[in-house]
Amino acid sequence: VVWHRADLLDAPAAAEVVAQVRAELLLHLAWDVTPGAFWTAPGNVRWVEASLALLRAFLDGGGARAVLAGTCAEYDWAALQGPCRELGTPLGPHTLYGTCKHATRLVAQALAAQRGASLAWGRIFHLYGPGEQAGRLVPSVARALLAGEPVRTSDGSQIRDFAHVRDVAAGFAALLDSDAQGPVNIATGRPVSVRAVIEAIAAATGNGELIEWGALDRVPGEPPELFADVTRMREEVGFTAGTDLAEGLRETVESWRRGG
Amino acid sequence: VVWHRADLLDAPAAAEVVAQVRAELLLHLAWDVTPGAFWTAPGNVRWVEASLALLRAFLDGGGARAVLAGTCAEYDWAALQGPCRELGTPLGPHTLYGTCKHATRLVAQALAAQRGASLAWGRIFHLYGPGEQAGRLVPSVARALLAGEPVRTSDGSQIRDFAHVRDVAAGFAALLDSDAQGPVNIATGRPVSVRAVIEAIAAATGNGELIEWGALDRVPGEPPELFADVTRMREEVGFTAGTDLAEGLRETVESWRRGG
Repeated sequence: VVWHRADLLDAPAAAEVVAQVRAELLLHLAWDVTPGAFWTAPGNVRWVEASLALLRAFLDGGGARAVLAGTCAEYDWAALQGPCRELGTPLGPHTLYGTCKHATRLVAQALAAQRGASLAWGRIFHLYGPGEQAGRLVPSVARALLAGEPVRTSDGSQIRDFAHVRDVAAGFAALLDSDAQGPVNIATGRPVSVRAVIEAIAAATGNGELIEWGALDRVPGEPPELFADVTRMREEVGFTAGTDLAEGLRETVESWRRGG
Repeated sequence: VVWHRADLLDAPAAAEVVAQVRAELLLHLAWDVTPGAFWTAPGNVRWVEASLALLRAFLDGGGARAVLAGTCAEYDWAALQGPCRELGTPLGPHTLYGTCKHATRLVAQALAAQRGASLAWGRIFHLYGPGEQAGRLVPSVARALLAGEPVRTSDGSQIRDFAHVRDVAAGFAALLDSDAQGPVNIATGRPVSVRAVIEAIAAATGNGELIEWGALDRVPGEPPELFADVTRMREEVGFTAGTDLAEGLRETVESWRRGG
C-alpha cells in the first residue's frame, strides 16, 4: 500500500495528488460528521464542493469507477413506510447534511453517466464499533456503564439498523468491487430497537440497573422507524453484513473497557 | 457604481473580493451557457462548486439576501401538464445542466435558511434580445433572413415562453428587491409557439419565404409544451414582463441589421 496525503478541502492540492496517482477506483468517505453537530454543520457545503472537485479530478485522470458515501438522511423521513428502498422510497432530506449528500449524488451520478464512468453511492445507516467518537450513542452508554455512572435514555422504542463499522467498511469495499450503479444501502437489513441495543451494551457491562429509561425525550424530527432494505447489497453486490449485534457490541464494550 | 473583478471559478480570489465588498445583496448569474454545449457541459459541475463557495463567502461576510439563477430545465419535462408552477410541478432534470442547477438550489436554500438569510431562485425560461449569442434560435433565424439565406426549421409547434432579455434582467432586479423566497419563475406567462416567434422575425425582416418549415426534426427529449406560471412573480414580486413579443423581436432584428 502506498499512502498519499492531501487536504481534500484544498481543491488544487487534491487535484494534484489525484493527477499523480491516476487511480482506476475512487472510494470517497470524507465529510463533516462531528457528533452532535454534523446535521447542521455548514462545513458540509464545502464537502459538496470538495467531493465534486475530487470526482472531476478523478474522471479527468481516467478513473473508471467511483463509490461515494451517502446517508439514510437522504430519504424523506416524514414519508417512510417500511424499509428504505433505494429505488422506491421518496427522497427529501430534512437536514443540511442530508441535503448536501443528496445534491452531491445527483450531480455525481449525472456527471459519471455522461463521462461513461461507473458510480455507486453507498447509503450508510447507523453504525457502531471500536474507535467510535465518544459522544455517540454506543460509546456514551458503554463508557458510562463501565464507569458505574447512571445513563439517561429515551424510551428506546426507535427502530434502527445498526451495522458494525467493520461490516460497513467491508460493504463499501464489496460495492467498489461490484458493478452496481447508483444508490445502494449499506446496512444489515436486520432492524432493531434502540432499547435492544442499549440492553445488549448493559449485558456486556453488567450495570444495566444504572439505565434510566424514558428520562430523555426522543429527538424531535427523528422518525420512529428508520431501517434499510438490503436487497441490492445482497443480490447485486453479493454482500451481507455478518456481525451479530450482541457479539459486535460485546467486542465494542471490551474495547472501551481497555480504554477505547 | 463601483466594479470589482474576480474569477468566480477561483474560489479564494472570489472570496477575497466578497470579503472586501461585504455586500448586503448578491445576484449571481454566471454559469456555462455556451449555445449548443451547455446542456452537457461538464464545466457546470464547477459552477455548482463556485456558486456554493460564492454564497458561503457572501453569508460569511454578513450578506442578507441572495438571488441565484435557475432554469426551467429543473422541472421534470416528462411530467409536465400545463404551466410550470414553482411549488407544484415535479422537479426532475434530465440534463447535467438542469441537475447542476437543481442541486445548487437545494443546498443554497438549506444553507441560507439555516443561516437566517433570505434567498430566492429565479428560474429562467426562454429568452431573446439584442446581443444574444449568434448560434441561438432568434439570432440564427434573423441573421439568415437578413442575409437572404434559407432557414431550415422544425415544424415550430413547440410551445414556449420567450422573454425579452431586458424583462428577464428587470425581473431579477425586482426579485432581488422583494422578500420572495425560494424558486420564482422569471418569464412572461404568455406562452407562444416557436412558429409564431419565427414568423414574427420573418415579418420584421421581410424574407419569410426563405423559411423551410419542417425541414428539421424536433429535438428529441424536448417537451412539446414548456411554459411558466408567473403568479409568484406577479403577486409576490409585483413584476410583469411587459415587452410585446412582436415589438421586442423587431427591435432585436434591427440590432442584427445594424451588425449585432
